[in-house]
Amino acid sequence: MNEIKIVPLGGVGSVTKNMYVYEYGNELLVVDCGIGFPEEYMYGVDLLIPDVTYLQKRLAEGARIVGLCLTHGHDDHIAALPYVLPMLNAEFPIYGSRLTAAFAKARMADQDYMREVQEYPEQPLHLGSFSIEAISVTHSVPDTRHLVITTPAGILYHGSDFKFDMTPIIGERSEFDKIAEAGNRGILCALVDCLRVERGSWSASEAVIRGTLEKAIRECPGKFIVTLMSSNLHRIQQTVDVAAEHDRKVVFVGRSVEQNVRIAQELGLLNIPKGMYVQKKHIQDYKDEELCVIIAGSQGQPGSSLVRAVYGEHPIINVSKKDKIVFSTEPIPGNEPNVYSTIDEISRNGVEVLYSDIEDNLHVSGHAGEAEQQLLISLLKPKYLFPIGGADRHRVAFEHMAEDLGFSEQQVLLPKLGQIVEFIDRVARLGDTLSLKELMVDGLRIGDVGNIVLADRKKMAEEGMVVVIVPERGGMLYPMETYVVSRGFVFMKNADEIVDLIKETTQSLVNGHRDMGEGELKREIEKNLGERA
Amino acid sequence: MNEIKIVPLGGVGSVTKNMYVYEYGNELLVVDCGIGFPEEYMYGVDLLIPDVTYLQKRLAEGARIVGLCLTHGHDDHIAALPYVLPMLNAEFPIYGSRLTAAFAKARMADQDYMREVQEYPEQPLHLGSFSIEAISVTHSVPDTRHLVITTPAGILYHGSDFKFDMTPIIGERSEFDKIAEAGNRGILCALVDCLRVERGSWSASEAVIRGTLEKAIRECPGKFIVTLMSSNLHRIQQTVDVAAEHDRKVVFVGRSVEQNVRIAQELGLLNIPKGMYVQKKHIQDYKDEELCVIIAGSQGQPGSSLVRAVYGEHPIINVSKKDKIVFSTEPIPGNEPNVYSTIDEISRNGVEVLYSDIEDNLHVSGHAGEAEQQLLISLLKPKYLFPIGGADRHRVAFEHMAEDLGFSEQQVLLPKLGQIVEFIDRVARLGDTLSLKELMVDGLRIGDVGNIVLADRKKMAEEGMVVVIVPERGGMLYPMETYVVSRGFVFMKNADEIVDLIKETTQSLVNGHRDMGEGELKREIEKNLGERA
Repeated sequence: MNEIKIVPLGGVGSVTKNMYVYEYGNELLVVDCGIGFPEEYMYGVDLLIPDVTYLQKRLAEGARIVGLCLTHGHDDHIAALPYVLPMLNAEFPIYGSRLTAAFAKARMADQDYMREVQEYPEQPLHLGSFSIEAISVTHSVPDTRHLVITTPAGILYHGSDFKFDMTPIIGERSEFDKIAEAGNRGILCALVDCLRVERGSWSASEAVIRGTLEKAIRECPGKFIVTLMSSNLHRIQQTVDVAAEHDRKVVFVGRSVEQNVRIAQELGLLNIPKGMYVQKKHIQDYKDEELCVIIAGSQGQPGSSLVRAVYGEHPIINVSKKDKIVFSTEPIPGNEPNVYSTIDEISRNGVEVLYSDIEDNLHVSGHAGEAEQQLLISLLKPKYLFPIGGADRHRVAFEHMAEDLGFSEQQVLLPKLGQIVEFIDRVARLGDTLSLKELMVDGLRIGDVGNIVLADRKKMAEEGMVVVIVPERGGMLYPMETYVVSRGFVFMKNADEIVDLIKETTQSLVNGHRDMGEGELKREIEKNLGERA
Repeated sequence: MNEIKIVPLGGVGSVTKNMYVYEYGNELLVVDCGIGFPEEYMYGVDLLIPDVTYLQKRLAEGARIVGLCLTHGHDDHIAALPYVLPMLNAEFPIYGSRLTAAFAKARMADQDYMREVQEYPEQPLHLGSFSIEAISVTHSVPDTRHLVITTPAGILYHGSDFKFDMTPIIGERSEFDKIAEAGNRGILCALVDCLRVERGSWSASEAVIRGTLEKAIRECPGKFIVTLMSSNLHRIQQTVDVAAEHDRKVVFVGRSVEQNVRIAQELGLLNIPKGMYVQKKHIQDYKDEELCVIIAGSQGQPGSSLVRAVYGEHPIINVSKKDKIVFSTEPIPGNEPNVYSTIDEISRNGVEVLYSDIEDNLHVSGHAGEAEQQLLISLLKPKYLFPIGGADRHRVAFEHMAEDLGFSEQQVLLPKLGQIVEFIDRVARLGDTLSLKELMVDGLRIGDVGNIVLADRKKMAEEGMVVVIVPERGGMLYPMETYVVSRGFVFMKNADEIVDLIKETTQSLVNGHRDMGEGELKREIEKNLGERA
């Protein structure tokens, strides 16, 4: 049989929610299983997960999943595992690099779910008719892999998120020799990270950050506070190195930073000199000028450690006028208001703050620029190209770039999300398009929240509401002060009884469940009020 | 009396909602009266206006407003006039440049309000004890002015939004000689637009856009479609010029673009060659390759002409695969998701699109970079500096820049919003801070929506709602299909009667008011449902 299919369940036409199925006969190989982030109009949605109805259907038809391979440890490639795996009533092995496997297990544990994740073996991995070779490449999270997927119907190259960093901090340079060797074997189709195709250049190395941090730490009479993406261990290592040179202890603050650092240390990926690490609860034992604080919240997320510290609401970390705060990151599009309002608050407080609008080389991208994409393509010499991991504008720009390299329009595959790419006798065609639902997780449940309900939420947000509020002061809830607020909610005058019922129910629930966490209590109140109504 | 005060009612610590009061004894001179734009958390708020309680109080105390001077025609400097003027029970003249006056009158007419706006005279304007000289400077909207405000207690320079464009398209270069002459008279305090202080360089001239448009129009087999900020007449003129050279007719689409072009033409500021202008309703009489379309919607605003055209929902303008769309603008921070989703849709449709991530010189800032601010300061040689029109991070960066120029910390005034700056015997001090309310206009009313209600709106947006929806298809309302949606709204089961009442009321209102505009009808339904309840 000379036929292989690629089914994109996520990651096509968007940057996140990556999940691809390689299908040979009745054998399914899954690559990645990531979450997506809600669009602005998705009010109240926490995250999105891939719709795996197609996999369920194929399993019911007798197909089997031979394995699931992870490329790297970013949430948009691994964090849907605890939501999606329980939906697949099937046994299969899961593989990743050491760090990716550890991050994946942490994400599952966060949701009280667990499955084993094995490390890629040295030798090619044989899963059914597939043979998989994991090639090490550089990216903003270390231990990233590309996959050479050999099938009886052709060799496919899964080139998701990468850059060619010639001076990576953690790990080695990308395995160019293995990429070239795969290219010489003849690649039928290469899937390539196209996100940064708009930038003509070669992305700068992580190593350039070092000089910027070095310059910044020199004149800092107080705490040197650095905020960054918590999975960027290269940057955490460089911050630690700079702190060590300037005789500062290092303190990690924020759940994601602390978790990732712990994992990376267990794997020996981070090098923190002995005696340099200070637990955040012992921070008072040191003078400000002896400390370097690496803190989560670089996107200015409300409730993040950095934002709470900046607004004086963090139980442990305060920010004083002698401190210096460095944003070693850039706002993800759409996050600008959160990031800039945090920077403004820091400025207002008279604290020095460095960010990329006023200081160069505070951030570099983890993704290949056009030049690196061209090098990958030149090494692989594939028959077909399939840009992934970018929005539609990036895919179209990639197509133009590929045409400059001599590829014809027919050789650049631009399927819709869910559209099956079929290779029959080494000739590609775009097949049927699966109807994929936007599966949303909103804290309460997983489901297809749907366009009408989302549009309604927006409308309501803008024009009216009724909401139950239990006041909190200093960590204590005051249910006797519960109030029911309405605004633009037109028939509230008739609803006195209902308001009273809401208040009473809420009061008794809060009083009866003082031990519950905020989220759990909220769900309990929602559930009960729903039942009482 | 040797005392003058500056009272910032808006524009301090933020870019928008500009309004300043210069106070000499019982004489008040007001400069600008602009709207602000709601923050992300201000669900359902359309715009913000300055809180003029202080002016009302001073009027009641016997003070008088001697006049209101406008600096330029951007909405954040003029568009609050129809909301604020009715709140001030006082007669006083309003002044602006020709274009600013015309834009201001248009903004008032939009709200069915009218007051005369006079043009600045050639000679200094005497208003009470104030003498005001309007100096012409360049900015993204033509006919912009800085103000030299001479009082018995000192000379103040109101240097709001500007750049020093050496090759402006409409109008002349800035009046450097007059600025220098004012400087030689001795400036007590200069208020300076600090927005772009983070950029070390001199902002590029509007003229650089011409080459980019020239290159883009050359290979365009269909309509050449340019979207831009509708008040940037320099750029509209350049687009017209390029279209003229390539024998294309020009069509203006979108309320703001059409209104501004009409006003500019009446004033002789735009030069559109005879026979080149085509009304949009006659667009079908021309071939695509004969047309250049200048269209509103450059921020990807939902409902804008560009967005409707791109999604095939515009009654007149369609976009075909041969067309080319040029975004001669950059996303305002926070608007990225709207802008990029529009660009993605264009790419998906196979239409060529140019935007600043892939093409240089599609946009230049209208604000002075650090170098231009330094030149203005060098010409004025003021005793004090007062950065305006920027966020707090910009004000702090400006302070650092001024220190590099030799100013001491005491010479750079950074009042809070509402904090009165007092100059007594030519010595500045920061005085009392007015408690200013966030006055919000939300389509229904003007008021202090307040933090609690806004926080509640957010909560509701994320967790539940009830909303009345009247379906619309093809411009027709279908009230018989009115539905009342609830989500997370816990006591809906008991509310059948109320739902029926809502539906009936809505139906009869819609049927009885088919002639009403959407906003008016919405208000009518809201009002009536409120009364019936």
